[in-house]
Amino acid sequence: MTSFEEAETEETAACLHMTFYHPCQDDKMMFRCLNFCKREQVRADEMAKFGRDPNICHYNLVDTRVSRIQFSLQFYRKPNSSELCFEIKNMSKKTKLFVDHTELGYLNKIDLPWKCIVCFGDYQILMEIQEGESLDYFETHLYLSKVPILQEKCIPLVQPLPENSIIPSLFPSQGKSPIEIDENES
Amino acid sequence: MTSFEEAETEETAACLHMTFYHPCQDDKMMFRCLNFCKREQVRADEMAKFGRDPNICHYNLVDTRVSRIQFSLQFYRKPNSSELCFEIKNMSKKTKLFVDHTELGYLNKIDLPWKCIVCFGDYQILMEIQEGESLDYFETHLYLSKVPILQEKCIPLVQPLPENSIIPSLFPSQGKSPIEIDENES
Repeated sequence: MTSFEEAETEETAACLHMTFYHPCQDDKMMFRCLNFCKREQVRADEMAKFGRDPNICHYNLVDTRVSRIQFSLQFYRKPNSSELCFEIKNMSKKTKLFVDHTELGYLNKIDLPWKCIVCFGDYQILMEIQEGESLDYFETHLYLSKVPILQEKCIPLVQPLPENSIIPSLFPSQGKSPIEIDENES
Repeated sequence: MTSFEEAETEETAACLHMTFYHPCQDDKMMFRCLNFCKREQVRADEMAKFGRDPNICHYNLVDTRVSRIQFSLQFYRKPNSSELCFEIKNMSKKTKLFVDHTELGYLNKIDLPWKCIVCFGDYQILMEIQEGESLDYFETHLYLSKVPILQEKCIPLVQPLPENSIIPSLFPSQGKSPIEIDENES
């Protein structure tokens, strides 16, 4: 029964790839409790919570400006469809959450586009959904970016660039045109 | 600062009134761990979970036919609105959940209408939302019905009625006919 031939077909799990950036990440080390090394599994019946309180949030941001729970992610299926979706909910009373250009107040929620930039305060997170089949769990994979993700917002924070210099881009695949996203400069 | 005059205006909390019924409730006592006496508070950042596993579900149904988590409820605000809503999500792989006539499979979710009947297996729950202002928490208030909530489904389970007898109706507003609430007798 447990032989290779009879084992259940292995399922792939949906994975949410999340690339974090904060302008003070080198000094303040707010990401020091995040696990950037390996994928982590989240059970489908649980919410993935991000915030300051490590007793509630598995994804802990060590920063007094971050709310106890900043935002949460849940996994669900659309009715009459096998499509698996992620929903993001702003759990902070003090800080707006932006999903691309959509502003979410406290307790507002929205489906996560397959690729988007989530911002709150000075935090920037590129989120990319990789599809999967498992209904039991999903995975998260965290990365740290050394450069701002949302260019326009962060230009004032980085070193001034000489004209014609190339702004490093994290996202070659966004849009149809090769590189070059919107936020070139302010 | 703590005087009556200076205290913050008290807010009302949204309350979800839930009336439970199961045809074997007198024998099997599956509702024995539910608290029918008083309202309970649920923090807005938490999910209210109903199911068999008391380590996960605050609302514990003592029945081997019930899933570890049967369904969950979350509180949220619609964007650009002060309206507070409840969302119900089926967390059972084995059992469909019906919200009035809408069927929810595993991980499907839907907004709860202000008054509706939720069914799974032989369980019937009348849910009624009472509006409130608080964004910090909502309340639940549980009741037990001695008569079936969903008449048509349960007619075969109750004693055969003589012709012309009146079937007790729990839902004055379901048809057009006036008041005459609940559990008079069967």
